[in-house]
Amino acid sequence: MKNIDICLSPELIHLYDLADKNVVIVDILRATSCMVSGLAHGVTSITPFAELEACRAMKAQGYLIAGERGGEKVDGFDLGNSPFDYMDEKVKGQKIAVTTTNGTRAIDLSRSAVNVVIGAFLNISAVADYLKKQPGNAIIFCAGWKGMVNLEDSLFAAALYEKLQNDFHSDSDTLSLTHAAYQSMKHDLGGFVKNSSHAKRLGKLDIHKDIAFCMKEDEYAVVPILKGSELVSY
Amino acid sequence: MKNIDICLSPELIHLYDLADKNVVIVDILRATSCMVSGLAHGVTSITPFAELEACRAMKAQGYLIAGERGGEKVDGFDLGNSPFDYMDEKVKGQKIAVTTTNGTRAIDLSRSAVNVVIGAFLNISAVADYLKKQPGNAIIFCAGWKGMVNLEDSLFAAALYEKLQNDFHSDSDTLSLTHAAYQSMKHDLGGFVKNSSHAKRLGKLDIHKDIAFCMKEDEYAVVPILKGSELVSY
Repeated sequence: MKNIDICLSPELIHLYDLADKNVVIVDILRATSCMVSGLAHGVTSITPFAELEACRAMKAQGYLIAGERGGEKVDGFDLGNSPFDYMDEKVKGQKIAVTTTNGTRAIDLSRSAVNVVIGAFLNISAVADYLKKQPGNAIIFCAGWKGMVNLEDSLFAAALYEKLQNDFHSDSDTLSLTHAAYQSMKHDLGGFVKNSSHAKRLGKLDIHKDIAFCMKEDEYAVVPILKGSELVSY
Repeated sequence: MKNIDICLSPELIHLYDLADKNVVIVDILRATSCMVSGLAHGVTSITPFAELEACRAMKAQGYLIAGERGGEKVDGFDLGNSPFDYMDEKVKGQKIAVTTTNGTRAIDLSRSAVNVVIGAFLNISAVADYLKKQPGNAIIFCAGWKGMVNLEDSLFAAALYEKLQNDFHSDSDTLSLTHAAYQSMKHDLGGFVKNSSHAKRLGKLDIHKDIAFCMKEDEYAVVPILKGSELVSY
């Protein structure tokens, strides 16, 4: 049986051997939810950048540029960090360069993996089906918040595991702990996440609308996968 | 109101500011359970060492020396890593030098804290009372297993928090997650821990007896506290 594990923070990923693994990157609020939404709405590719200015420079190469700092869209950028920005008609057929901190870091740290895919509640069943079909073992890699464990990424990891229990074996304490927390919270995941410290930190106008959307399961069937430095639909 | 947080691994502790904190070190299987047991049975002090040979050298200074590698007591050592070794009549009035990996590392990483105390299920209420009386904020620091999150330390952290909810405030996602897992598992903590990956890794003869003992609440009222490089009773 294939094996599955969960990594709760980029600060812990060096403890895992990714070489034979399919890695699912998770940054529910809001990077991976945006990526899934964009590719589902006809975006050609999404290229993540850690640095804002490297991202901005892609504008000259014809990319739409996306990013926020402190909860606001960056001056001169085409899109912010709300999944609703990625549904606009103008994104269709475009390449997007996006700057995110936690999500980009997690992707960079996963380059030794067999495959890197992007997970969110929005495409959770599609990601589960993808992992079932792939021959390799799986790691669900939570981007967290500045290295800290966060609630929404951890709960997503457990929710995804729940869909994979018949196909994957786990002997991980991290997974046992996270899955037990999910059992306690699954009757109201959205409520717990809305009241989480991370959500409160993001607490700007409109964030509640974003959170409610990011917690929806199976809005889309797309599985974003990393090819070189670009995320494209599988 | 005072603040409380949980750190799930030594690999995450640099993200926390310990300068105004009382830190509770947790290594349930079995370092901190041994320390609590020893001081409760009349040991004068316990000095932790990361390296086996540094620990062995303390024998010449009149210390009893304690430690295990691969689940067996080290050749020439007086005590292994079972809490029952720390109850023997011969430990009374003695200084012990102990080599542990995860527990020692956690202690070393906590030296900037106001106070470092040792927590285990065996003294959980005594530690809770200590934290209530101290003016500072608190962090429960799980030693984990080779940097990985483990179940028994995490569940202890949540169990201790449960006793402190009226006195401490938390806005930590780590604590929310861990506490939710505890809610799912508290009807059979011992059973979950016995079946955890970490317990299975330790899976040598007699470990089940050790685990059952280490999961007992409030066997002792002692609070080991770090003074210089020694743990002594508070």
